Amino acid sequence: MIDHTHKVRIVEAYIAAFDKGDPSAAAELFAENAVVEDPVGTPVHHGKDAIRAFYANSMKTGAKLSLDAPVRGGANYAAFCFTVTLNYAGGDKRIEVIDTFAFDEAGKVTEMRAFWGPENMHGF
Amino acid sequence: MIDHTHKVRIVEAYIAAFDKGDPSAAAELFAENAVVEDPVGTPVHHGKDAIRAFYANSMKTGAKLSLDAPVRGGANYAAFCFTVTLNYAGGDKRIEVIDTFAFDEAGKVTEMRAFWGPENMHGF
Repeated sequence: MIDHTHKVRIVEAYIAAFDKGDPSAAAELFAENAVVEDPVGTPVHHGKDAIRAFYANSMKTGAKLSLDAPVRGGANYAAFCFTVTLNYAGGDKRIEVIDTFAFDEAGKVTEMRAFWGPENMHGF
Repeated sequence: MIDHTHKVRIVEAYIAAFDKGDPSAAAELFAENAVVEDPVGTPVHHGKDAIRAFYANSMKTGAKLSLDAPVRGGANYAAFCFTVTLNYAGGDKRIEVIDTFAFDEAGKVTEMRAFWGPENMHGF
């Protein structure tokens, strides 16, 4: 069982990777065969290389993440509620998101799912 | 595709069911063969009868739910971040939770997963 302190540390490292604009730092949190589904219902990015490329693209928007509430745990899962701010087409935008992470026994993220839809996008 | 207004209405009806202490009102939001996994990593409650019994038990604690942030969408999903307050063993307790709902095309919830662990329980 992955302890809560580790989960929180990984979420903080994920947020810090966006702060630094460092897609490799984000990808390093994932297991080799991890899947990222962002937003839910869209095709997954499978494997660390695809995940790194996905984050490289996301970070081009200058997206920064801030937690709205404490990280939730449960078994080998974490879920966290946050707001993304970005500057796009000359204006400040905001997206409300909840991510879930599943962890393997080594503490790497094996699955990330991001819950957000058009109604969570503000200022676009 | 289930629209966001419907998702928010279902989340509000779910919260209202707790306010009223009405397990049938909560169970009615689910499809016949729905599964509830609360918290994640524990055996699921499968089918509307099992789900009603689960909520009857939960509501005995007098648990009330309040949203911490706006409901997140994405495809046929909703995710929401909330705090449960309850009075147990003579004291006020608080649990931080994130729930995810998957919807079928009729707008019923087919899967609920609740993310929370021991570190999200306060005052126990």
